[in-house]
Parts: sequence; C-alpha cells; structure tokens
Amino acid sequence: MKKALAIDVGGTKIYNTIIDESGKIVGEIEKRPTPKTFDEIKTVFKEIISKYEDDVDVIAFATCGAVNNENTGILGSTGNIAKEYPSMDFKSLSSKPVFVENDANAAAWAEHVIGASKGMPYSVMLTLGTGVGGGIILDNKLYKGKSGAAGEMHFKLRTDNHRKCTCGSFDCFEAYASGTGLRLTAVEMSNNPNITTYDVIAGKQNGCEQMTSIFNKWQDDILAGIIGLANLFDPDVVVLSGSMAEFVDIEYLEKEANKQIVTQPFKVVKASAGNYSGMIGAALLALGVK
Amino acid sequence: MKKALAIDVGGTKIYNTIIDESGKIVGEIEKRPTPKTFDEIKTVFKEIISKYEDDVDVIAFATCGAVNNENTGILGSTGNIAKEYPSMDFKSLSSKPVFVENDANAAAWAEHVIGASKGMPYSVMLTLGTGVGGGIILDNKLYKGKSGAAGEMHFKLRTDNHRKCTCGSFDCFEAYASGTGLRLTAVEMSNNPNITTYDVIAGKQNGCEQMTSIFNKWQDDILAGIIGLANLFDPDVVVLSGSMAEFVDIEYLEKEANKQIVTQPFKVVKASAGNYSGMIGAALLALGVK
Repeated sequence: MKKALAIDVGGTKIYNTIIDESGKIVGEIEKRPTPKTFDEIKTVFKEIISKYEDDVDVIAFATCGAVNNENTGILGSTGNIAKEYPSMDFKSLSSKPVFVENDANAAAWAEHVIGASKGMPYSVMLTLGTGVGGGIILDNKLYKGKSGAAGEMHFKLRTDNHRKCTCGSFDCFEAYASGTGLRLTAVEMSNNPNITTYDVIAGKQNGCEQMTSIFNKWQDDILAGIIGLANLFDPDVVVLSGSMAEFVDIEYLEKEANKQIVTQPFKVVKASAGNYSGMIGAALLALGVK
Repeated sequence: MKKALAIDVGGTKIYNTIIDESGKIVGEIEKRPTPKTFDEIKTVFKEIISKYEDDVDVIAFATCGAVNNENTGILGSTGNIAKEYPSMDFKSLSSKPVFVENDANAAAWAEHVIGASKGMPYSVMLTLGTGVGGGIILDNKLYKGKSGAAGEMHFKLRTDNHRKCTCGSFDCFEAYASGTGLRLTAVEMSNNPNITTYDVIAGKQNGCEQMTSIFNKWQDDILAGIIGLANLFDPDVVVLSGSMAEFVDIEYLEKEANKQIVTQPFKVVKASAGNYSGMIGAALLALGVK
C-alpha cells in the first residue's frame, strides 16, 4: 500500500506523520512549534523529510495560505507565518514527488473520501476555529478556481463596515462565525471587553439567558452564511469542522437553513475524519485517492 | 448550419426567435404577454413550435425557474407565473429535441461563448433587473449544483431581518442589488415612500447630492456581493447584465473589489451579448456549442 509523509503547516504548529492510501495514520504524530523565520521553517521541513522520505512514495503538505492549481507553491501572502514563506520552493525539498494543498481544502477532501461527506459529490466544508477556513468539492473534485485560491469564506454579512476582518476588509463571514467572532459578538452584546468564548459556552451550558442569546446570535450568523452557500452552490451537504463546530446545534442549522433556501434540500453535518484531516486529505490528494 | 427555435419564458412576456449555432439571430423576434393559466401557456408554446419546428434542429427554452440537471423540466416552484408551470412536460411539445435551461444560466452561457466572458473559463454573471439573476461558469462548464438549482444570488448582506426578500427570507443580495432594492434603499434614505429608481438615476445624473449618496449605497451593496463571490469562486471575471447594469461604474467596482479580495485579481465587465442573450445561450446550449 502506498504511503505519504504528511506535513501540516500552521501559523503556530507544524505536525507530521505517515498516512497510507486508505487514509489511515500509520506513523507517529510529531508536533513542533512553527519557527519564526523562513530559514528555520525550511530547516524543519528538511529535517522531517530526510528522516522519513525513504519510507514513503510522496511528500504531502497541508499548509496555511492559498495554493496554486499546480499544487507546487503558495499564492499571494499568508497571515501569521514568516513573510517569505510563500516563496518556499517545496519541490526542491525532496527527491520524492512533493504535493502541496491548502489545509482547509485538504481537510474537505478527507471528509469527502473517508469522512462525513463521503459519497456526496457536492459539499462545502466550513472549519470554524480561531478563524474560518473553507473547502469546496464540486462534482467530486476539489474546487480551486482560476488560480487555486477559491473557497475563501470572506463574504460580507454586513455592509456598514462594522467589524474589521483579518483579511483587511470588513464584516466577512469569518469575522462573525469564527471563535474570535463569537468573542467579539459577546463583547458587543454584554458590554464587557474581557468576556471570553469560554464564558459564553460555559454560561450557555449553565442555562444563563444572556450567554444563550449571545451564543444564538453567533449561531444565527453561521446559519446566514450556510444559507447563502446553499443558494449559490446547491450542495448535497455542508460539513462543519474545527474546534468551534462541536458547540453548534447541527439539527437546528439544517432545519432552519432548509426552510430559507430557494435551492433543493441539503444536509448539515459535523466533520468525522478527525483532528488530522488536513494531513489525511493532503496525503489522499498526493496519492491520487478519490 | 444548425439552428434552434429559442423561446424565452418570463413572468410577463414570452419571446421567440430562431438562432443559429454561431449565436446569430436569424429569425423575427416575436413577443407576446405571458398568459395567466397553465393551459394557455401550453397553447402558446404549441403555437410557436408548430409554426417553426420544421425549420430547426432543436427547441431551446430559456425559462424563469430553476431547471433540472437533465434540462427537461423545472425544479420546485417559480414566482410570478401560473403555479402549475413547473409541471410542464417540455419534451412532449415537439417531435424535435427539446432543451430547457434557466434564463439567467442561459444568458451567462451566451456571454461565455460569444460575449463579455468569452475565452475566460471561470465567470459569474449577475443580471441586475427588477430582481437579480445569476449564472456561474466554472472550468468552461455551466455550474448547476447537485440538482440544477445553483447560482441563486440569495446570500445575506445583513443578518437583522431588515428587508424581506422575494424568496421569503430576509436581506438577500437580490433585495439590495436589484432595481427594487435601489428603490427600497431610496425610500429608507430619503424618507419618501413614493421615490422611484428613476428619481435616483435622474437625480444622480443631475448632480443631486442626496440621490448620488443613495445611488452609491446601492452600488456599494453590489460591490459587497461581488467581493464575496470573488473570494468564493476565484473567477476570471464577474459580468454584469440587465437593465440596472447600465448605470453602475464598472471601473469603480473592479478597482474596489480587487482591493478587498483575498483571492487573485479578476475583472468586472458589462455583458455584451445583447438583450436576447437568454435565447442565444439556450440555443447554443441546446445545439451543444461551447
């Protein structure tokens, strides 16, 4: 069975492991902090690759940042990682084939092949964490757009420049539907600048009315985004993943969204490919598993 | 050269003509009011078809309503046309092949083959009229989604249930970016319930500050939608068509949108396939012209 060395590159952590073509993790999961400088990141990549490349058929990166349609490198700039990172020459890192994909796209592919959207040709995945990632699968293919950058969940939920988004613009879905968005919604609704997402989640679980209404506002912003995506893409399913997805009421979202769309009924489900779906999806893509 | 009898079915008018495989209109343009009842609509279709079917290779409908992926009939319900219309058995209307596509999708295809998005594999078309229609072309193919209903421009620009949309939900792009949306924005901003879109357009052209600021708010709502679509689809181009498109500042929209997106640069252009692009696109699709 063919195997990939999978490397997940985030702004704060780099993970790696070995994954076979069934999507099974067959190596140790290693984890280290993402170094500050471009050269240090490159050194870490080389260390990992030299240790494992003889045991695998391909090297598969799941990385932050948009990845080109050739799956060889990063497009444009990325947020919280060394500013030269987009110039990384991934191919030169190994004598084995090197494949690169955006982490959210890779995770969506893992769900499509072995997870919650398996068997469904049209799916949109939303990764609700500190920010919001997106991955779109259309007709059983990862949708990348003209340059590779498609699937960015930066569509506006307001038009009055109310809340600055990490992308530099205002009022994107990410700015409301993310964990950061929940915190900011809580600050606005409670007039408490020190309130945390934990306060809202714990308060709601303890039956606090105010925290429940803050939570519901956040969840309805997620609902609003899902409705728009369903009307645009007419998908079989919207998959929710990421640390914040565990708190949402999936049944409510599915039922309410289906009431409001003009397209055909669709499902809303939670991701099931696990915490390492980015590495799994990158490995499956690199190994050509559909 | 192969030819299609093209029939455009809207809520108020039915048009028909003959179109060849180069996209050229080679017949008279006939126009009649859309009858009130299902049986009368069927009778009109039969009249048109019996008159022209011997002269053409296929019958091509561009119709209101979402059309299935088999291009044989309507999905779900449609707004302002006889309520039984979605049950129309189009195939039974002629001994020649009958092809059906949604009017906005057909118009987007006409732009792709002979119009403003020619030569560009990824395009999103917005038809700004009384409402807003949408057509999405991805990788040189009309994007229809799992059931055929994709490309509905019902994504929310607000989340406070401010303005009811024709779809039954609130605050969709259509409710702001359409001609009707401009009128409602004008009513809100002027506190004059009788203000018309004409008043805004004429006032702006005459240099009225208030009308200009109403117009700019409407145009910035269109901009907000375009930014979201560009971040989701990473298209080569967004094409604006419809009666309201002639008023917008295309250069402004392109420049501002490109400043705010996180994906790669794209164009904003006006449609160029003409007033009958729905019929032209349906004919080209029916004749298999790419």
